[in-house]
Amino acid sequence: MASRNATVALIGAGDYIGAAIARRFAAEGYSVFAGRRNGEKLEPLVAEITATGGTCIGRSLDARKEEEVTAFLTEADAHAPIEACIFNVGANVNFPILETSERVFRKVWEMACYSGFLAGREAARLMVPRGRGSIFFTGATASMRGGSGFAAFASAKFGLRAVAQSMARELGPKNIHVAHLVIDSGVDTAFVRDLRRKRIGSDAIEPDELMDPASIAETYWQLHRQPRDAWTHELDIRPYGERW
Amino acid sequence: MASRNATVALIGAGDYIGAAIARRFAAEGYSVFAGRRNGEKLEPLVAEITATGGTCIGRSLDARKEEEVTAFLTEADAHAPIEACIFNVGANVNFPILETSERVFRKVWEMACYSGFLAGREAARLMVPRGRGSIFFTGATASMRGGSGFAAFASAKFGLRAVAQSMARELGPKNIHVAHLVIDSGVDTAFVRDLRRKRIGSDAIEPDELMDPASIAETYWQLHRQPRDAWTHELDIRPYGERW
Amino acid sequence: MASRNATVALIGAGDYIGAAIARRFAAEGYSVFAGRRNGEKLEPLVAEITATGGTCIGRSLDARKEEEVTAFLTEADAHAPIEACIFNVGANVNFPILETSERVFRKVWEMACYSGFLAGREAARLMVPRGRGSIFFTGATASMRGGSGFAAFASAKFGLRAVAQSMARELGPKNIHVAHLVIDSGVDTAFVRDLRRKRIGSDAIEPDELMDPASIAETYWQLHRQPRDAWTHELDIRPYGERW
Amino acid sequence: MASRNATVALIGAGDYIGAAIARRFAAEGYSVFAGRRNGEKLEPLVAEITATGGTCIGRSLDARKEEEVTAFLTEADAHAPIEACIFNVGANVNFPILETSERVFRKVWEMACYSGFLAGREAARLMVPRGRGSIFFTGATASMRGGSGFAAFASAKFGLRAVAQSMARELGPKNIHVAHLVIDSGVDTAFVRDLRRKRIGSDAIEPDELMDPASIAETYWQLHRQPRDAWTHELDIRPYGERW
Repeated sequence: MASRNATVALIGAGDYIGAAIARRFAAEGYSVFAGRRNGEKLEPLVAEITATGGTCIGRSLDARKEEEVTAFLTEADAHAPIEACIFNVGANVNFPILETSERVFRKVWEMACYSGFLAGREAARLMVPRGRGSIFFTGATASMRGGSGFAAFASAKFGLRAVAQSMARELGPKNIHVAHLVIDSGVDTAFVRDLRRKRIGSDAIEPDELMDPASIAETYWQLHRQPRDAWTHELDIRPYGERW
Repeated sequence: MASRNATVALIGAGDYIGAAIARRFAAEGYSVFAGRRNGEKLEPLVAEITATGGTCIGRSLDARKEEEVTAFLTEADAHAPIEACIFNVGANVNFPILETSERVFRKVWEMACYSGFLAGREAARLMVPRGRGSIFFTGATASMRGGSGFAAFASAKFGLRAVAQSMARELGPKNIHVAHLVIDSGVDTAFVRDLRRKRIGSDAIEPDELMDPASIAETYWQLHRQPRDAWTHELDIRPYGERW
Repeated sequence: MASRNATVALIGAGDYIGAAIARRFAAEGYSVFAGRRNGEKLEPLVAEITATGGTCIGRSLDARKEEEVTAFLTEADAHAPIEACIFNVGANVNFPILETSERVFRKVWEMACYSGFLAGREAARLMVPRGRGSIFFTGATASMRGGSGFAAFASAKFGLRAVAQSMARELGPKNIHVAHLVIDSGVDTAFVRDLRRKRIGSDAIEPDELMDPASIAETYWQLHRQPRDAWTHELDIRPYGERW
Repeated sequence: MASRNATVALIGAGDYIGAAIARRFAAEGYSVFAGRRNGEKLEPLVAEITATGGTCIGRSLDARKEEEVTAFLTEADAHAPIEACIFNVGANVNFPILETSERVFRKVWEMACYSGFLAGREAARLMVPRGRGSIFFTGATASMRGGSGFAAFASAKFGLRAVAQSMARELGPKNIHVAHLVIDSGVDTAFVRDLRRKRIGSDAIEPDELMDPASIAETYWQLHRQPRDAWTHELDIRPYGERW
């Protein structure tokens, strides 16, 4: 793997999708700057990528804090120019509307929408002067549909989609590729397997019944590789057997 | 006009759409509880409706404060049972993404989305036990499309639409009619006339080129009258000559 | 009821929605020109409306035949100027894709889309010179979503929606109100009751569980009454208890 | 290039997008079966691909004729199992509604929608028993929006999108990947350059201002490569500078 003088900043570098994106871009020679709430949890990922000859730097990051986002991206960009910023903070909750506290509503928005705005804007601030870069946002079914019990989560995800769309329309002509990826199904994570175990008494998963985080990471990589005469702003992904 | 033992609560009772909704429901015998940031500005409206034999009560209300929203709706409901709650707070701003401060992004969201969630939830809390009521939200073009420069406003309006959709799916079966009205054009207000004067040097408006607030109010009234076997969740309105 | 010098042309005047629309507009003093495949089936409706002092004229009409549509609308307009043309031909079928014959695909399109184009265009030809009129199309869940087994039906309904949208954008500025009403649920018809009987062994329907055709007709009437500064192009309707 | 025992069938193999897709899949070792109205026009493409060691077979094909579509796909499948079928017939026209003849409306539908249904269904008939394959449809801006003057074209493209969606929902679980690619901008073709010359007096194109057919072909190739745990059903593409 040839190393590049380029960084991908990953905001919301969780154990599954985030880690897979880190691996995918590291494998292409990018330095990966990975941020998540509790930075120590990134140690195994950093060790793994380093062991394969890649570069991954982990940071504790509260993505809801403007100054932390700015500092994180500035540091990443100082390491090597940021070519991609991927926002992947989740906050899936479900409450009946009468039990949705203002605290939950606000917190979900801060995590899933407001921090996405901060990440996108701060990445744009670094990329626009240089006239290139990719800014990608992870969406969900709830980005497109406000289901029962999802007032807080769907509201935040709809809001994030609007940020992505507005940024794409403004920044496309400045050669910044802004995309929104709608993950319309369960991903193969410990949390999802656990849910299924509780629901149906088993966590047996058919092959390819859930999305492999590596497949999602591959989608991001393909988006980043698109030539600028044919950029995708939005796409959905789901497993072959999914009902939708 | 026969008076009814019923209240309509109006959150965001501005000089145009809000005032027109107040007049329309007052004309049907509803007590109107009208709230806006600066309650004194409601005095002419209250006087006008009172003069025609209607009931309109104006209150200062910061719709971003949970306790104020709760108190406002509780008082309205104590006056007479709330049959309709209409959320009409606007916050239209346009900034290039790099000039969209976190303060603006947050404030627009608090005004146009978060306060809509509070209004809807608190209205539902009063309506659900009684098994009836209408909760309506005012949307805009930006509810459906994130245009360049609209990251803050579209994000809030997308988010409000998600709240409306989630509430509709949960509360419809409880006989609460939740609707979202997309105003896809300019309304005939002093602000819009002023903008046009600046842009094209004249505020001459062709008849029906802009929406009359009374027409929007009529749409809300028709939504409220719909029988429950054929409820509309979402509709758009625009003037006949509008390009879209 | 004061009689008006105005006609509403109803293409696809079936026993439920079509008949209800006929009754609603006749009750407002419109002459109703009702067309359906087998015109004799309109006799009871004509008799009923006539008995209440209204005017309803029934005609056999194959809406897939251009010359028949032209003749039908020309005759209606000669009777009294056409103020509204409502297209309500249905063709709901469900087949697995491999069992969808080209004959079915074509026929469903001819009934639900092509004939809607003919009706809309021919109505526009009469209305445009006079600068007024309403052209409304009946849509369905399948207008918005291509479900499994619905390749033929959804394709025709999507296509009809495109016709409505294109016509609205072109003809709105000519003062022709073009609207598309999405009926997102079952209507209370013999056919639907029969289906339920087969499926769940009973045709017992909760009150307002299905849409009353009269409620749909009322929605069309309200659309027709809208002032031109606030026209709706699209709205959905469904019963309060519907899952969607 | 290693040759594979696999065929891609290309229906609507025009000089630009179609030819580019043929080249892309041929370069991966697929036998390409290319069909277009006038098969002789395929000779240069066949010669070019053959010269590079690939396999391309050109056929005259009227995609509106069921028996021709069946025969074309059967022959392709006999050559080597069909792994992908790509439908790319265009029919972009713009007429005011009153000048849209029934002949145009029907013909555009037959070319852009009906023949897509035939291609999709017949490809599925070959793929389903074998439990694998890709069926892709080329969409356009008009697949999502019915613009003024586009009643015929948008109606056909909306209809094709519904076919794609219905097939995806039914055939996904059978391991057939059905996707719809929305080309939301001009492609760099002689026709588009010509239009621009007429409109703005010059066909000077900024680099990447129009989409290179090769970029569209690459998108189809990436869709075909997706692992089945993360299939995209729909994506849009447009050049970086496009206003949308």
